[in-house]
This record gives sequence, structure tokens and C-alpha cells, in this order.
Amino acid sequence: MTRWRLTIEYDGAPFMGWQRQDHGPSVQQALEEALEKMTGERGQFTAAGRTDAGVHALAMTAHTDVTKVLTSHRLREGLNALVRPQPISVLDVEEVAEDWHARFSCVGRRYLYRILSRRAPPALDGGKVWHIAVPLDVDAMREGAKHLVGRHDFTTFRSAHCQSDSPVKTLDKLLVKTVGEEIYIVAGARSFLHHQVRSMVGCLALVGRGQWTPDDMRKALEAADRSALGLNAPPHGLYFVQALYA
Amino acid sequence: MTRWRLTIEYDGAPFMGWQRQDHGPSVQQALEEALEKMTGERGQFTAAGRTDAGVHALAMTAHTDVTKVLTSHRLREGLNALVRPQPISVLDVEEVAEDWHARFSCVGRRYLYRILSRRAPPALDGGKVWHIAVPLDVDAMREGAKHLVGRHDFTTFRSAHCQSDSPVKTLDKLLVKTVGEEIYIVAGARSFLHHQVRSMVGCLALVGRGQWTPDDMRKALEAADRSALGLNAPPHGLYFVQALYA
Repeated sequence: MTRWRLTIEYDGAPFMGWQRQDHGPSVQQALEEALEKMTGERGQFTAAGRTDAGVHALAMTAHTDVTKVLTSHRLREGLNALVRPQPISVLDVEEVAEDWHARFSCVGRRYLYRILSRRAPPALDGGKVWHIAVPLDVDAMREGAKHLVGRHDFTTFRSAHCQSDSPVKTLDKLLVKTVGEEIYIVAGARSFLHHQVRSMVGCLALVGRGQWTPDDMRKALEAADRSALGLNAPPHGLYFVQALYA
Repeated sequence: MTRWRLTIEYDGAPFMGWQRQDHGPSVQQALEEALEKMTGERGQFTAAGRTDAGVHALAMTAHTDVTKVLTSHRLREGLNALVRPQPISVLDVEEVAEDWHARFSCVGRRYLYRILSRRAPPALDGGKVWHIAVPLDVDAMREGAKHLVGRHDFTTFRSAHCQSDSPVKTLDKLLVKTVGEEIYIVAGARSFLHHQVRSMVGCLALVGRGQWTPDDMRKALEAADRSALGLNAPPHGLYFVQALYA
């Protein structure tokens, strides 16, 4: 048996998320079916993060175990051929130790959130950005974001469905930057609560619009109460961009 | 009557191109129908360039004449609302003089061609880039591109359907640069022949793959013969990016 580490890009639009679901297609299921067609084995794919319905990945890391002897080249090419026409692409495949684990060995996760900040709707990036048609104050957003960095109880920014043992997490970075007509929000932490990035971005958008002051971010955090959440940003602007390993 | 100048973004995928066609949808038709719904007037849109089927625009410039009194804000918002769900977005609208002409006043056009240069197919940018799975020699492509810059007879790089009076054009720039996993080819000229950018990019791809030497670009140009063309790049990697006016 060989354990393979895979780097995977996907468009989240047609999927119920990474994880296998009874009620619709998932990235995990698409990959497992492709692997079964290729090897006859009913393997399982485990990812560094379980993205929600509609959330994209530029480089999700996952692992799977395969008994059949394969080269990394053949595994990547086979999966890419068999997963089509679903928008999933295996960028890289590498053999790892049998105790290496995409989720438990992961020591850091990075997300990118893309906001298209202009009056006109997107014609080319529909479904790939959150379009906000009113002007946003990026400096205020940046100031608001600073209140969330560090070790905090993130209950306010946590979904009711979150399965994490504790609401306390350490947010390493939350950067807000302008890239052309877009605002990029980059979030980094060892791990995140369910909906945490989208909840933080939703509140930052309120700050950008002037409906919240930057200091309202601090108040929302300190409330440690889900009802203090201002807004949950939509999934289609969110990208899983990197999993870090020691 | 007011003449309006419009800046328009569109995804070329569902269209037969900019220009109205009997056999399928076009960007021009979509805009003209939206304008008619809004004003009751059967106006006409004229663009700086008539992109082919599948070719995108980040910022096409066009003009149209409207008798009904409107503000630029209302015209943009109305067109964007009525053109939906077609992937067309009016970015900007501005009143211009009645003798201003999107095509004839235009003194320069810029195109961008995006090649995704990696083994794995695109999951997020499908239909937005030309995927070339074999490695490309960017330095050789850059060297090959230099042979085309300047005033030349571009017959080799001209479609049989080209309606231009002369095959002689002045290519101001043809830049090849690496942007992450992509290769961007930026072409600038006062005007281009039909299929010229895609024909130049197709031959540069042959150079990148090592099937042509950089000097073969010069030979193809000097042949001034369509049969000397190596390859026509597909439309979906091409973007009209800018029209320049004096």
C-alpha cells in the first residue's frame, strides 16, 4: 500500500462541498469514483480542510491509500482523465509516509476571499467573486481586521453546525489588500472554525460599507455570541489556497 | 440625440462574437435588445473591434446613439439589468461628441492572450485560458515574437475572411511574460488583421514547444503566405483589453 499526497484545484460551484454527502455531488466522491474506475479499489480521500458548498480551492491538500502499484505520473493523469468533465484538477501527486495525514499533520491553513468592488456586475468572474456594488473603505476594513488577529474565543464567527471542541482559535493573519478592482482578504491560522472565514469577511464588508465602525469588530468578537454576527459572506468568493506541513 | 461611449466586459463563450449574426447570439444583439427594452429605440452598437466567437473582452469600447434623455448612470444600470443573465457587463458610460466613433476614432488596440502552462488541466479557469500541457520555452517565444514587431506584410497571419484593404500593418508590441503558471502574450497595434493575434500566438506556441525555432517566425512572416502558418490559437484564451483614443 502506498499513501499518496495530492494537491487539488476545484471550482466549488457544482458541489455540495469537499465532503461526501447523501444529497448531492462532492469533490471527495468525484475523486473516489475516479480512483475506483482506475484501480478497482474503494479508497477514501481525506483533505486538509472540508470546504462548504460553493467554496473553491486553488490548492487543497489531500491523501489517499492505494494498493495497486502506480507511478505518481499515472495516478495524476488517470484521475484527471476520469474525473472529467467535473471541474476538478489534480495538480500534483507525491508519495508520503504511511503515517502522514492531510488533516492531522497540517499545521497551517490559508484562505483567500475575493470581493469585486465596483458598480458593474462581473461578466467574466461570475461565481468566482463576491460582488459588492457600493464603494468600500479598505482602510477601515484593514483596521477592523486587526482586532481579530491573535488568540480569541471566536464564538461569534462560528456556525451552529461547527464540530470543533473549542471556539478558541489563534488567527495568525487577516490581511486586506486591493488588487485592481478587487479586494483580497487573506486569512491564515493553524485551523479555523466552521464558517469562520466567511463570517469574518461578512463583518469586514459591513465595516467597508460604513455600517459598522472598525471597533464594532472588536465588540462583536468580545460578545462571543453568534447573534452578534453582522453578516456571513457568500461561499463563492472563498478559496482554500494552502495547507502547511511541518 | 446623445452619443454614448460604453466600456464593456464580456465572456465570449456563449456568443458567435461581437457582431450580430443570423445563426446565433452576439454581444451586439444582446446590447441592442436591452437598449430597445429600455428606450423603445432600435439603436445600433458599434465597437472598436469585432471579436470572434469565443473571444472575451475585459474592456471593449463601443458607442451608441440614444434619442431618449437619460443619465449615464441610468443607461449603465438599465443595460446591466436587462442584459442579464447573459455574461455582459457595462463598466462605464460617458457622453461623447456626435462625431466620436468607437471604431474610426480608435488609434490603438490591445489584446491579451492567456496560456495556462502546466501539466494539469484548469479546474477554475476552464474556457478562459489555452491549456498547453507540455513545457514551453518562454525565452524562445520572446525571441520569436521580436521578429513580428514593426511594419510588415502579415499575410501569413491573416484569415481568408479578412476584409482589410491591405495586409500591411504595424505591430507596436508583442510581449511574452510569465505570470504564475500562465504565459501572457500582449499585442498592441493601431489595428489588426482578422485572426492576426491568434495566428501569431499559435506560431509562438510552436516556438515554445521547440517545434519551430525563433527564426521560423521570421521565415513564416517573410513567406507572406497563409499556408506558412503553423497554428491558429483557440479563441477562448484571447481578451480584447483596451481601445486607445487620441
